[in-house]
Amino acid sequence: MAIKRIGNRTIKFQNPPSIIGTSSIVGPKEGDGPLRSYFDLVLEYDTWGQKSFEKAEAKMQEEAIKLAIKNANLSVNDIHFLISGDLLSQIISSSYTAREIGIPYFGLYGACSTMTESMSLGAMIIDGGFADYVVCATSSHFSSAERQFRFPLEYGAQRKFTSQWTVTGAGATVLSAKGEGPYITYITPGRIRDYGITDTSNMGAAMAPAAVDTLLNHFKDTGFTPMDYDLIISGDLGLIGRRIVIDMMQKEGYDLSENYTDCGIKIFDTVEQDVHAGASGCACSAVVFNGYVYKEILKSTFNRVLVMSTGALHSTTSSLQGESIPGIAHAVTIEKSI
Amino acid sequence: MAIKRIGNRTIKFQNPPSIIGTSSIVGPKEGDGPLRSYFDLVLEYDTWGQKSFEKAEAKMQEEAIKLAIKNANLSVNDIHFLISGDLLSQIISSSYTAREIGIPYFGLYGACSTMTESMSLGAMIIDGGFADYVVCATSSHFSSAERQFRFPLEYGAQRKFTSQWTVTGAGATVLSAKGEGPYITYITPGRIRDYGITDTSNMGAAMAPAAVDTLLNHFKDTGFTPMDYDLIISGDLGLIGRRIVIDMMQKEGYDLSENYTDCGIKIFDTVEQDVHAGASGCACSAVVFNGYVYKEILKSTFNRVLVMSTGALHSTTSSLQGESIPGIAHAVTIEKSI
Repeated sequence: MAIKRIGNRTIKFQNPPSIIGTSSIVGPKEGDGPLRSYFDLVLEYDTWGQKSFEKAEAKMQEEAIKLAIKNANLSVNDIHFLISGDLLSQIISSSYTAREIGIPYFGLYGACSTMTESMSLGAMIIDGGFADYVVCATSSHFSSAERQFRFPLEYGAQRKFTSQWTVTGAGATVLSAKGEGPYITYITPGRIRDYGITDTSNMGAAMAPAAVDTLLNHFKDTGFTPMDYDLIISGDLGLIGRRIVIDMMQKEGYDLSENYTDCGIKIFDTVEQDVHAGASGCACSAVVFNGYVYKEILKSTFNRVLVMSTGALHSTTSSLQGESIPGIAHAVTIEKSI
Repeated sequence: MAIKRIGNRTIKFQNPPSIIGTSSIVGPKEGDGPLRSYFDLVLEYDTWGQKSFEKAEAKMQEEAIKLAIKNANLSVNDIHFLISGDLLSQIISSSYTAREIGIPYFGLYGACSTMTESMSLGAMIIDGGFADYVVCATSSHFSSAERQFRFPLEYGAQRKFTSQWTVTGAGATVLSAKGEGPYITYITPGRIRDYGITDTSNMGAAMAPAAVDTLLNHFKDTGFTPMDYDLIISGDLGLIGRRIVIDMMQKEGYDLSENYTDCGIKIFDTVEQDVHAGASGCACSAVVFNGYVYKEILKSTFNRVLVMSTGALHSTTSSLQGESIPGIAHAVTIEKSI
């Protein structure tokens, strides 16, 4: 058994799952950014007619899941498993969405690493022959995250220059046992790295060591070099985290300066849109992958991409009890053809 | 593909994973209960020398994982994946434990369904050939749960007769691609059922419909009847939820009165220990399965058992916003020999 493992931590799929449909829904600020044309739906109001930010987030995730299934030319009942998670305590956006979708459900908590955590588990479930179709999904909302993790919006707290802006949005990916690609060909699941960062306004720095650990293992396990990829894109390290990753990888002998970027940098014009160090949130890599990256793979702009969502696994309680911020990063290789 | 699926929702494993090691650690109150002799470790103090209940919970989970690995005659580095979750916001008990364990990690949130959620995913990962060894784990702590979900302990709130007592403890299960059993032979993953219960002091009633939905699908998919099992045991429905399950199943033509019980009833003497409707918490099914059930399977008291952890997927925020409590139940069949 375990013949699908290569190296220390990487899995090479024998029947690579196809990504046959995606969706991305974003809030108005994200729709004002440079990737506007890639998103399936840009909301006019970030409450979307709901009575709370949390309910608006759940509605975004629900509609994103339905839209991805529709884009895959399937119906909800064709899907064997829904795998999803989000940032909110007890992942209520995902669970209340799963109630509406009504199919077997595995809830995850991987913070902002959720998109590739769900794709990693979903790809194993498909490749292993346990399902024909799986939907992977996540969401985040600037206002539900701010009031849960930081300050009430009404307080008007000044944001540090290291802080990042939580993306309001939701993305979903339909994986299929059959299809003509793009394919998930490899996954390198992450382990937790914690270099002792305690500043919850500097998440990029807290997550960067986990990203480096996953990248190093991925390259060693697969034998790929960075230049074997048309694009390497992390989840939400932002300007500071990306810089740390490039520097740390340089010291290990890997040059990422050519083809590595971060979803948290791509989604906003960081200066014009005043988001300081970039974007964050589960939806950051979800909408950038399911919108921009996936559509550019279909157009053959990219033929092989490494998507690596990154998560900071702390809570307000752990921070108040003096704990540092553990980071994790799950990497997924997506290829247009095999 | 998907040849391992039978019926609507059940998976039958072709290379059933073996459970080669388990562990259970409990607090003093659980150690005073009728299952005392089955637990690997009974703590004298539920803080275990830590400065907070949350840190004590994480320590229990960490030690349970290490102990299960030791009981399986393995070392931590033999394990390919850790799959775990807990009740706390952002599953800090699991994430901080995963930091200490240091191996690739998938974080889950399934509330009190986490034990069988993690075993379901772990079994697919093993059967699919993606890992040789996986550890599945979870924990809960009465005092960390009370102050997060209900009232500060110091407030001395009166407990309703429908309320359940969160188990202080942690359990872990080592799954292996090779071994001589007990085996995980089937899983029936759950979908969310929500009959509109809003009383967070009556979780058994909130989760019972999900348990019934999973049981009905399991019996239909597999062709088993309740009497094909030596024991059917749900996670933490307690006295009220168990009664509802028996009644609802009776109406569907299934008699569970003979061999069905609930971990939340087994772990405490509900009258003498003053726990009202029984026990709850992720650790409830975790320690009852990894302690009592597993050891009795080894002794051949039971040859085929259905373990079904049950989760209530709400949060304090969702309750304050008027939402009802969605329930989920994941069922796992364990057989001594195949």
